Amino acid sequence: MLKCLRCGASCGDDEPIWRCPDCGGHLDHITEKLLSISPEEIKRGPLSMWRYSKTMPVRSPEKAVTMGEGLTPLIPVELDGVKPLVKMDFLCPTGSYKDRGISVLVSRLRELGITSLIEDSSGNAGAAMAAYCTAGGLNCSVYVPDYTSAGKCVQIEAYGAELIRVPGTREDTTDAAMAAARETYYGSHNWSPWFVEGVKTFAYEIWEQLGWTAPDHLVLPLGQGSLVLGAYRALSELRDMGLIDHIPKIHGVQSANCAPLARAYESGLDVPENITKAETVAEGISSATPLRGAEVLEAVKRSRGSIVAVDEKPIVEGIFALASRGIYVEPTSAVVVPGISKLMESGAISKGETTVVFLSGSGLKATDKILELRRKIK
Amino acid sequence: MLKCLRCGASCGDDEPIWRCPDCGGHLDHITEKLLSISPEEIKRGPLSMWRYSKTMPVRSPEKAVTMGEGLTPLIPVELDGVKPLVKMDFLCPTGSYKDRGISVLVSRLRELGITSLIEDSSGNAGAAMAAYCTAGGLNCSVYVPDYTSAGKCVQIEAYGAELIRVPGTREDTTDAAMAAARETYYGSHNWSPWFVEGVKTFAYEIWEQLGWTAPDHLVLPLGQGSLVLGAYRALSELRDMGLIDHIPKIHGVQSANCAPLARAYESGLDVPENITKAETVAEGISSATPLRGAEVLEAVKRSRGSIVAVDEKPIVEGIFALASRGIYVEPTSAVVVPGISKLMESGAISKGETTVVFLSGSGLKATDKILELRRKIK
Ligand SMILES: [Zn+2]
Ligand SMILES: [Zn+2]
Repeated sequence: MLKCLRCGASCGDDEPIWRCPDCGGHLDHITEKLLSISPEEIKRGPLSMWRYSKTMPVRSPEKAVTMGEGLTPLIPVELDGVKPLVKMDFLCPTGSYKDRGISVLVSRLRELGITSLIEDSSGNAGAAMAAYCTAGGLNCSVYVPDYTSAGKCVQIEAYGAELIRVPGTREDTTDAAMAAARETYYGSHNWSPWFVEGVKTFAYEIWEQLGWTAPDHLVLPLGQGSLVLGAYRALSELRDMGLIDHIPKIHGVQSANCAPLARAYESGLDVPENITKAETVAEGISSATPLRGAEVLEAVKRSRGSIVAVDEKPIVEGIFALASRGIYVEPTSAVVVPGISKLMESGAISKGETTVVFLSGSGLKATDKILELRRKIK
Repeated sequence: MLKCLRCGASCGDDEPIWRCPDCGGHLDHITEKLLSISPEEIKRGPLSMWRYSKTMPVRSPEKAVTMGEGLTPLIPVELDGVKPLVKMDFLCPTGSYKDRGISVLVSRLRELGITSLIEDSSGNAGAAMAAYCTAGGLNCSVYVPDYTSAGKCVQIEAYGAELIRVPGTREDTTDAAMAAARETYYGSHNWSPWFVEGVKTFAYEIWEQLGWTAPDHLVLPLGQGSLVLGAYRALSELRDMGLIDHIPKIHGVQSANCAPLARAYESGLDVPENITKAETVAEGISSATPLRGAEVLEAVKRSRGSIVAVDEKPIVEGIFALASRGIYVEPTSAVVVPGISKLMESGAISKGETTVVFLSGSGLKATDKILELRRKIK
């Protein structure tokens, strides 16, 4: 079943709609039956996130559009005296965790008969959408702002997606994509009710990798909030099935230059604060008006977690702190380094607790940027 | 035990030597005891190549320098009417399969007391060595030719390795590294007897992913030949343990512009042919004088496989053929696309047989190159 987050209307999940037919609001996928999974069964499944297919709204998982995404390493790393576990999700097929959500999204849309779709993203989601559409035999057009660098476009274009450059701002790009989608289908991962159903699998995997137990804390980069929503969804499902006894505290980390959710959290608001964003090196989470902000704030609150904002300099230092442990990520992922430090300072996380930090995108996607940052630092 | 491939001398494997003390030849690691592994045990192991640690010459696998490398996806892909399975090994932590070998090499050297080493590579091995050394607390200097692009150096430098640019040819770089190594340790992956002991795990994983059976064919990019040697080693071990009933045919694919082993194979020679190499887009396998060439030729022959050489244009087309299936690899990996076509044409591989092709490096490492190639093609 799909349910509108704005007006509460519900409708079947067998129609290829992407927003509420009544009010245009966001649709959420609701699992009606109680889920049922077991460690034994999971271990017999494929060596990918699809070992959790029983928790996903895909009818025929054996026909899924998959490239073996997920089941990424979880390894201990020492950072500033803290010893978190690091979820290496940048090792998904296109170089970012978005593959999880896009794999489910494209699989489900193909089941619903969609053969062509439009996405707007100049970053990781655009690359993931282009890859999974071509793998699944769907046509895909990716709209990007015309200032997007050739280096960022090359991966999307190599997959064979149509790339459309739109003059003006990032918002103009979304407008152009939505207008064009009237003729075809708007597959936007930010709007889709299916995306988070794939993203959530990372939290199931952490549970498995910790010997079928939940950690005390999750520390996640936070822009639109799909990681927070996915984590909360998976952990709630695990709790409802009686497979964990507590929900970990979910902490989101934003760039201080674009922190509508951190500001709202500090002020005790239920919705994102209106902000004017400044440029940030963490461009993957530079979302001034997160579409599902209210939901994100609620999920964080229910988990008894928190949201922190971190400055540019420590983000950049975070890139090289991780690299000096052998882990090469794009700047966006590095927010978790100052994030965990802040959470330790404030006492939100204590030494000895089990903390997992999430690394979302590959450093190999940001060669030019990292080169530039390294030169500045030296 | 270590055994010299040139003079046959043997010596213990508890000394941090990198070549034969008698004649300067290559050392091979010989496993003296019969190995013993079982599917049940393997499935209880970690979700990385270290589930095969019982086959590795590392004394304390629980202290290994690991970032969760290996256990990469094996997925079916349709290419030109052929339906091989693709081993997505570019999804290792630094973006190439070299992580497997370097993880074992660095782990073993650390056990032997090495704290500082020298490597020469401008490519994937240099990045892997820099990453695992810093992860394991070893100092690492990477020697590269001074014409190496800044983009290629940035990953190595980000890990914190010392990068030394050497004027002249690639061979001058090796000479400089070996000269400098007199003061410290020459960790070269091409010389190390430990490297192939990590690389081999990819073949164990294919066995596991095929339900504990061997495929009919392996198709591998071939330069120095560590993939061929690793595959042959793992498969021989599996056969000796009685876990497979046949050794798959191992096929190596070289660039025609640098094909000393393909030439030797065609001429029935036991050693690499002397060639003058031309530039190739498959720079990761551009090795004119493969150090263990005779061994590689013997492994291919024993497996009843073959070696083919492929031209530049079909290699470039191979990059985009894979990308159009959602798989984004560096040019070197794409040799397997024309490679498998040639093997089909010649009848070496038939439809209906189980064939696995190996993808060695991420396309995200070659953004500039792929951009340039795309512009040429259009
Ligand atoms: Zn509504
Ligand atoms: Zn010797």
